[in-house]
Amino acid sequence: MAIWSNKFHEEMSQDAYQFNQSIQVDYRLLDADLRGSKAHAAMLGHQGILGLEESDSLVKELEQMRQDYADGTLAVDFTTEDVHSFIEAELTKRLGTIGKKVHTGRSRNDQVATAMRIYVLDELQDFIEKTQEAIEAILTKAEGHLDTIMPGYTHLQRAQPITYAHYLLAYAQMFSRDLSRFADLSDRVADDMPLGAGALATSTYPIDPFYTTGQVAGFTAPYVNSIDAVSNNDYAIEFLSDLAVMSMHMSRYAEETIMWSSQEFRFISLKDSFSTGSSIMPQKKNADIHELMRGKTGRVYGNLMSVLTIMKGLPLAYNKDLQEIKEQLFDGIDHVKAMLTLLPGMLEATIVNKDVMYAACGTGFLNATDCADYLTNKGMAFRDAYQVSGDLVGYCTENRKSLEELSLAEYQEFSELFDVDIYDAIDLKNCVYRRNVAGGPAPEAVTAAIVRVRANIS
Amino acid sequence: MAIWSNKFHEEMSQDAYQFNQSIQVDYRLLDADLRGSKAHAAMLGHQGILGLEESDSLVKELEQMRQDYADGTLAVDFTTEDVHSFIEAELTKRLGTIGKKVHTGRSRNDQVATAMRIYVLDELQDFIEKTQEAIEAILTKAEGHLDTIMPGYTHLQRAQPITYAHYLLAYAQMFSRDLSRFADLSDRVADDMPLGAGALATSTYPIDPFYTTGQVAGFTAPYVNSIDAVSNNDYAIEFLSDLAVMSMHMSRYAEETIMWSSQEFRFISLKDSFSTGSSIMPQKKNADIHELMRGKTGRVYGNLMSVLTIMKGLPLAYNKDLQEIKEQLFDGIDHVKAMLTLLPGMLEATIVNKDVMYAACGTGFLNATDCADYLTNKGMAFRDAYQVSGDLVGYCTENRKSLEELSLAEYQEFSELFDVDIYDAIDLKNCVYRRNVAGGPAPEAVTAAIVRVRANIS
Amino acid sequence: MAIWSNKFHEEMSQDAYQFNQSIQVDYRLLDADLRGSKAHAAMLGHQGILGLEESDSLVKELEQMRQDYADGTLAVDFTTEDVHSFIEAELTKRLGTIGKKVHTGRSRNDQVATAMRIYVLDELQDFIEKTQEAIEAILTKAEGHLDTIMPGYTHLQRAQPITYAHYLLAYAQMFSRDLSRFADLSDRVADDMPLGAGALATSTYPIDPFYTTGQVAGFTAPYVNSIDAVSNNDYAIEFLSDLAVMSMHMSRYAEETIMWSSQEFRFISLKDSFSTGSSIMPQKKNADIHELMRGKTGRVYGNLMSVLTIMKGLPLAYNKDLQEIKEQLFDGIDHVKAMLTLLPGMLEATIVNKDVMYAACGTGFLNATDCADYLTNKGMAFRDAYQVSGDLVGYCTENRKSLEELSLAEYQEFSELFDVDIYDAIDLKNCVYRRNVAGGPAPEAVTAAIVRVRANIS
Amino acid sequence: MAIWSNKFHEEMSQDAYQFNQSIQVDYRLLDADLRGSKAHAAMLGHQGILGLEESDSLVKELEQMRQDYADGTLAVDFTTEDVHSFIEAELTKRLGTIGKKVHTGRSRNDQVATAMRIYVLDELQDFIEKTQEAIEAILTKAEGHLDTIMPGYTHLQRAQPITYAHYLLAYAQMFSRDLSRFADLSDRVADDMPLGAGALATSTYPIDPFYTTGQVAGFTAPYVNSIDAVSNNDYAIEFLSDLAVMSMHMSRYAEETIMWSSQEFRFISLKDSFSTGSSIMPQKKNADIHELMRGKTGRVYGNLMSVLTIMKGLPLAYNKDLQEIKEQLFDGIDHVKAMLTLLPGMLEATIVNKDVMYAACGTGFLNATDCADYLTNKGMAFRDAYQVSGDLVGYCTENRKSLEELSLAEYQEFSELFDVDIYDAIDLKNCVYRRNVAGGPAPEAVTAAIVRVRANIS
Repeated sequence: MAIWSNKFHEEMSQDAYQFNQSIQVDYRLLDADLRGSKAHAAMLGHQGILGLEESDSLVKELEQMRQDYADGTLAVDFTTEDVHSFIEAELTKRLGTIGKKVHTGRSRNDQVATAMRIYVLDELQDFIEKTQEAIEAILTKAEGHLDTIMPGYTHLQRAQPITYAHYLLAYAQMFSRDLSRFADLSDRVADDMPLGAGALATSTYPIDPFYTTGQVAGFTAPYVNSIDAVSNNDYAIEFLSDLAVMSMHMSRYAEETIMWSSQEFRFISLKDSFSTGSSIMPQKKNADIHELMRGKTGRVYGNLMSVLTIMKGLPLAYNKDLQEIKEQLFDGIDHVKAMLTLLPGMLEATIVNKDVMYAACGTGFLNATDCADYLTNKGMAFRDAYQVSGDLVGYCTENRKSLEELSLAEYQEFSELFDVDIYDAIDLKNCVYRRNVAGGPAPEAVTAAIVRVRANIS
Repeated sequence: MAIWSNKFHEEMSQDAYQFNQSIQVDYRLLDADLRGSKAHAAMLGHQGILGLEESDSLVKELEQMRQDYADGTLAVDFTTEDVHSFIEAELTKRLGTIGKKVHTGRSRNDQVATAMRIYVLDELQDFIEKTQEAIEAILTKAEGHLDTIMPGYTHLQRAQPITYAHYLLAYAQMFSRDLSRFADLSDRVADDMPLGAGALATSTYPIDPFYTTGQVAGFTAPYVNSIDAVSNNDYAIEFLSDLAVMSMHMSRYAEETIMWSSQEFRFISLKDSFSTGSSIMPQKKNADIHELMRGKTGRVYGNLMSVLTIMKGLPLAYNKDLQEIKEQLFDGIDHVKAMLTLLPGMLEATIVNKDVMYAACGTGFLNATDCADYLTNKGMAFRDAYQVSGDLVGYCTENRKSLEELSLAEYQEFSELFDVDIYDAIDLKNCVYRRNVAGGPAPEAVTAAIVRVRANIS
Repeated sequence: MAIWSNKFHEEMSQDAYQFNQSIQVDYRLLDADLRGSKAHAAMLGHQGILGLEESDSLVKELEQMRQDYADGTLAVDFTTEDVHSFIEAELTKRLGTIGKKVHTGRSRNDQVATAMRIYVLDELQDFIEKTQEAIEAILTKAEGHLDTIMPGYTHLQRAQPITYAHYLLAYAQMFSRDLSRFADLSDRVADDMPLGAGALATSTYPIDPFYTTGQVAGFTAPYVNSIDAVSNNDYAIEFLSDLAVMSMHMSRYAEETIMWSSQEFRFISLKDSFSTGSSIMPQKKNADIHELMRGKTGRVYGNLMSVLTIMKGLPLAYNKDLQEIKEQLFDGIDHVKAMLTLLPGMLEATIVNKDVMYAACGTGFLNATDCADYLTNKGMAFRDAYQVSGDLVGYCTENRKSLEELSLAEYQEFSELFDVDIYDAIDLKNCVYRRNVAGGPAPEAVTAAIVRVRANIS
Repeated sequence: MAIWSNKFHEEMSQDAYQFNQSIQVDYRLLDADLRGSKAHAAMLGHQGILGLEESDSLVKELEQMRQDYADGTLAVDFTTEDVHSFIEAELTKRLGTIGKKVHTGRSRNDQVATAMRIYVLDELQDFIEKTQEAIEAILTKAEGHLDTIMPGYTHLQRAQPITYAHYLLAYAQMFSRDLSRFADLSDRVADDMPLGAGALATSTYPIDPFYTTGQVAGFTAPYVNSIDAVSNNDYAIEFLSDLAVMSMHMSRYAEETIMWSSQEFRFISLKDSFSTGSSIMPQKKNADIHELMRGKTGRVYGNLMSVLTIMKGLPLAYNKDLQEIKEQLFDGIDHVKAMLTLLPGMLEATIVNKDVMYAACGTGFLNATDCADYLTNKGMAFRDAYQVSGDLVGYCTENRKSLEELSLAEYQEFSELFDVDIYDAIDLKNCVYRRNVAGGPAPEAVTAAIVRVRANIS
């Protein structure tokens, strides 16, 4: 029997009931609801709305239910309409009449809103920690490749030499921003505890939302407006938007891994622990995990779009449409967390083929910019130096030579400013080491950047 | 052990294996795969690639497995990697070496593609039938309300009088277009059977895709290009796009039902079978089911957006990203089908408050257009007649009268063309009955439109 | 002065007026509106609602305005609220009182709906023709590469040998489905001419929507329900969905072109006409156009999502929200059409490096499947043959040999079924030519597929 | 001639050039680019890369160009490829060879990235100010309606009495969160100035990104990694996500305004300055502006989805796809800013019909909860009190009475705990005033909430 049922309301159609039921989705709010309910019960006692004995007994039993659920001795009844009905029924079974009093001065609407915020705050904390771990894994990998020289790309064309460590730090930065966004959202959620908002208009009981807020670890302030408190789902959109960006970052990493482990690139090889094989071609290692990661990005985008659509044009305050948001948020959380958790292992399973990377720098004139800079340093105007360098590359292409292979005489036919130090200027390793400015690829600069990242994320 | 595993490939990380596993999602392709496999086995025999006895034995056992699954005697092993591995393992368990031969001349890629098309063709047929039923339910409801006069709205402002039947037919038309889209997609899928495409490049065996196509009910032609055959997921996007439009149609109906059952409108009341109550306000009937229907529209939009994102920029032919598409499509199918199935019951549970609807036509000057048309018929130019009518309404507003309540003398102060037949012209019922043109609200016109709809959907 | 303004309505805020103004977007409906208005005027005469002389004069002047606009002698006044107000004002300027009569028996709502359908039908015809041209360009390119052997990929790993013609035909098929979708939509639009639906409830004049429909080339039937007629925007969603799929197809082609023109692949080179250069690296040819094409896919997805969101939960019939749909549809049409128009030139500018493609087939054991099939043909069971072949590849990998380089003795150590004809079986060219089944890569099969494509698209 | 053109690269196809051209979109970065270029030129001088005189002359001329553009004496040449090429060409025209030196030690990639960040930081500041103004307008309106009692809704059913001020504060809170998100994003952008990142690998010149950062007002730190710096578009996604949420908030307000100004609700009336009229029904005031606002929400969702799609799976570092992001971001900024700017005027144009709102509280048993709370206060258990209250409402419904109209004798038939103070308990005004807890509807509580909001947003 639904908790809202009464003698005036006849039975629902069975199809409609099932369509309406949500316990399959919201059962995971069980612990969060118990914590919110505990805070509410404590406040009821503190404010004298319930007797202190009643209040204590409610708080104690709700905590007991948390432990029983954790121990596996409390099993959810999946025929109930939702997890909140289940909790109230169970509490009343345990405590009798007192159990019925937990709902004094609150409503289903603020109860559910509170459980969701508690749940979200937990998840954000988990994401913050897992993101820190992922970044640390990236930094550790980078520290092993400070002088692993490879081509940097623009337009998927080899452009300038970088190092694998420098490349990895781009991802450390992306995840650092993700981390920063999680932290900002966490602050916003903590600052808006909805318990006390009631159905939409608080309560005539002398409840104290500030007291309640103090009872739930992590929260800093109660809601400012009760109507907003029960209809606000900004946090779900913001969380999914943050997850969408994080999954987008992972999709870029996945894309590069897939491409770089192709026979054409061979920059990296995947260990068997993170690739699938083929029954017919044993040398074949498919980057299935990376492909799935790339694919799941679309899933998270869809979650975000769903929630945005649901909220559009919805009149205040509560409407049942909001029920659909939970599943989208949970799905996004589950899948991005799975991806994030796999990331350190994926990095570990990535074998870097340093020789192949280095060799790839030999073709493509990655030092052409350095050749131009050489001339500018000797006093030639910027655009002119670039033109001379361009002419040189054209000459090389026609004669199938690299810049390293030209003689000084050949150089000097293009400009008299060239001298024997040109060979030093265009040496690949030098090209990397000389880019020793903030955020650059030189090992010293990357080492400094690692320090900056570590400072930012701790 | 994964079917692709071999002695050269070490074990996958457990986390990666689980991330990669898909049987929780694709188990529902079991019957479809068995039908596709039967067709393939029959073709192998017909083409002499397998002996006829082997072929027959495969065909027979695959059919047996279908029946065993339908009977509940064949249970899916959810520790397998995917349903296709499960089927081959089960077949080999039953037939020994012959079981291993079913995969001759095909690949996992065309096998999965085929199972999906068979599944989709089934689902489209189901949607076509359920949509026809929903339209028929709408038409039946409409037939009972040919003269239930109500206000028609633009900008949510009362504009002109229509009937409830006329209103319902707008939805009959929307669903008719949905039906037409399902039928078009069904033709496109049927015309592109992928079995024989292999991994991406067909096979060196003398397979005959035309023969195979003839073996699966509903299909009309084999693939034209094998690479396209295994990478094409247009049908999933098109199906989800069609479902998104259908759910959008339902969201509009849901929105109006929610609004119309408010205390302000009271145009309709919902039976208890399709509303939820409140433990405190027994008169309250919340349109939870309609709100969920409106909310789930966002879900389907998300499914569509996910699949579009997954496919963007994906190189040919198969990539594991495509695995994610299945779950999005299944989710969209499940939820829209649930909504579509509920629709006839929702209509039946809708009590139309005819008196309230009629009374609502009394305010808002819904016959102002008719008053202007009256003057145009008497010879006044269109824009001038509209100006006079506007002046009249202004006069009524100031004097708190309706157009029906003005005396002829009052009318004639605005134009000498007014005569006693003006009262006939602005009579609400006449206003509806005179709109007796194709697609109009007059009962006769609606009856004719019902005939057109029935002809279109059968 | 807005056409809806009247003496009772005071002036709008200037900001609000500009926010509301739409002529910057809808001016492109000018010709379509004139054609719809002509049909309406003709019907008014035919039905005796206007005198034949008046009707003829309206029809003639509307046609004159079309020509004046085409000639550039009629300039749109961009201070008007929308293009429909502009047309009526211009018509009245030209014809005086008669001009005001064109609006008899219709409303702004059906007028705009009609202009949009006419416009869309034109655009669909244009897309159908341009898609046919693009497919023909693909087929022509393919005919020049029937025996250009290249690796086929799954998971971006070389899998089996195909030809460049075979590859191109995958895109011919994708565009053929796009074409088929455009044609289906065109039929649906043509079958639902909205003129006569009025504001939402038709008219009290004896209009004849069937007659009107016959007056506009391309249309086959009038609306079935007037409320639906003025609120239906399914066609915009369906068009944008079709465009999203088409742009997705182009994004895949763009992705492959970008990858294949990298220094790592070098399968193709882009002519200067379709690439950008670099002032410093003259050998560099960035595939900017292809990258933009890939990027614009996101744009079209956004257009689609916008329109879906706008329509969700919108009550019947007309609401101003619908105004926003036009710009999204026009934007999608413009950008996909630009991409589609560039496609033949992009193909033409693609230089195929046949030697590089062929050489790429030499590594990666693309003939491993053929080796297994060889054994199956000699009688070995399928899964066993694949195991032997896998062992052979493992042996090759360890010994850095290709399958072609193994001696017969080496083969026979793995199975006694091997004989000298194995070399024939694993010859790359043979591997392609033997896949001579429907939809396969063999030149004969591709030639047959080209015939099928040409039959389907004409 | 494109800036990247050189003697080795032949001309582009005219179609391709136009497809590639971006000045129509990026011209609005002109001032931002000039400011970034100034900072770069100053740094070049400070680091001794250019002579101080050259540096000063560049800085001075770039500032002069800013003023000339502001004055209208510098006109953008729209035949140029993009605004950055235009600036360099103009600078060189003005300064000769020195102008060519501004590009020393930077690249197009970091130049564009910098212009975008400067532009975005400006826009965020503008949004922050305009949001503060909108919130202040809401608070001011609320202060005038502290005791305007109206029904609060759940499921669009009247639930409990609130005030119009209390309702408005829900929106103040929504916009406060929007504000908070803009501020967070602003910090993140300010902390990641990309100038110095070069094409992707910084520069061999001894540039000092920290110095450069100090030269542009508002920025706090340079990029940590140069590859990330030129490929990072997180800020565009985050901005559009924030704008999507803000527009969603406005869509809810718009929806309610449209509904509340219907003939059925009549809670509010719109002044003519923010509504459109009808030539035929002068009493009709269509909420076109609100409907457009609701519709444009879909537009912004589409912008967001576009950018997410573009970024998905894009390999590092720069790709031309990113060009498409600008237009989406600009479009989102323009339209949400237009909406935000209109908001104070829309509030001002909203006439609140206090009597209608109050009367609406009289039906719907909005005080049923208070009746139950009355009993609980007298000692009855919560769920039991609710049951009695439910029975009472059922009795009222059958007898067509309100709770206020029942006699004490009637009350006491349901429970002996009822006494004459029940009439006080269920008095509508009292029901509102007693909800005097944090975030509640009582005037005192709303006044306190206004203080909290003002403290949060300043």
